[in-house]
Amino acid sequence: MKELFGSPGKFSGLMLRFGQCSLASASVGFMLSAHNFYNSTAFCYLIASMGLQVLWSFGLACLDLHALRSKRNLQNPVLVSLFVFGDWVTAFLSLSGASSAAGVTVLYARDLNTDYCKSQPGFSCIRFQISVALAFISWFLLAISCHIMLWLLAAL
Amino acid sequence: MKELFGSPGKFSGLMLRFGQCSLASASVGFMLSAHNFYNSTAFCYLIASMGLQVLWSFGLACLDLHALRSKRNLQNPVLVSLFVFGDWVTAFLSLSGASSAAGVTVLYARDLNTDYCKSQPGFSCIRFQISVALAFISWFLLAISCHIMLWLLAAL
Repeated sequence: MKELFGSPGKFSGLMLRFGQCSLASASVGFMLSAHNFYNSTAFCYLIASMGLQVLWSFGLACLDLHALRSKRNLQNPVLVSLFVFGDWVTAFLSLSGASSAAGVTVLYARDLNTDYCKSQPGFSCIRFQISVALAFISWFLLAISCHIMLWLLAAL
Repeated sequence: MKELFGSPGKFSGLMLRFGQCSLASASVGFMLSAHNFYNSTAFCYLIASMGLQVLWSFGLACLDLHALRSKRNLQNPVLVSLFVFGDWVTAFLSLSGASSAAGVTVLYARDLNTDYCKSQPGFSCIRFQISVALAFISWFLLAISCHIMLWLLAAL
């Protein structure tokens, strides 16, 4: 059993999953609290991809907690392969969601005339920006998990 | 020496690099030919990321061609590690560039009122769409290379 930082069934792994889950939830929360987010497909896609990340990371956090309590070993090839596949698919969707929302946010906040955000009633550019920033940090934590899982699979 | 499809120093590898390079060049060409692309940061970022992909893939295509002519073996751990690192960094930048440009393109073509593209003088939404589609296909070919290189590195 490898003692790698962030591997499944370890306390560091649980913390990593908890970080991903909470940051993705916060990103969805900030986006939902901004009015008019549904007018842009990119923002809806960000909510969908971050929602998937919340489900995936929360599920794995519960699994880590169960393994920690019952002292089970989660590092068998089938389970780790499943984690690798899920992590990579989720990371791909999260990165594309965060990037597309970032493109639209930069367009609103910088590329259109500087008063665009203020001129639209109920339009909250700062919430879009915070949501996108949280999505990128959440994706970064997921990318760390992806590499740890790949490393584990290669070592098994 | 592994006989894997698309591995460096093989004809299939050369074709893969040639495909990435030509599709990324076409994406940059379509974006440059659209007027007003410089008004959006996301489109400028797409050009920068696709430009980097052109340079990287063209360089590796030349290396593959040289290896094919001189029958050299490119599969040593140091070179393959370098390919893995370069491929993954380029793929990450390409995906984020294509996604952010896609977000802005969908906003222009669908989310804003349907006549937005026609109402702006010299605004070519169809060129933005073709450029983004080519960028995604180019990224897909690069993703294939990424996985082949990782596979090769694990097998070496």
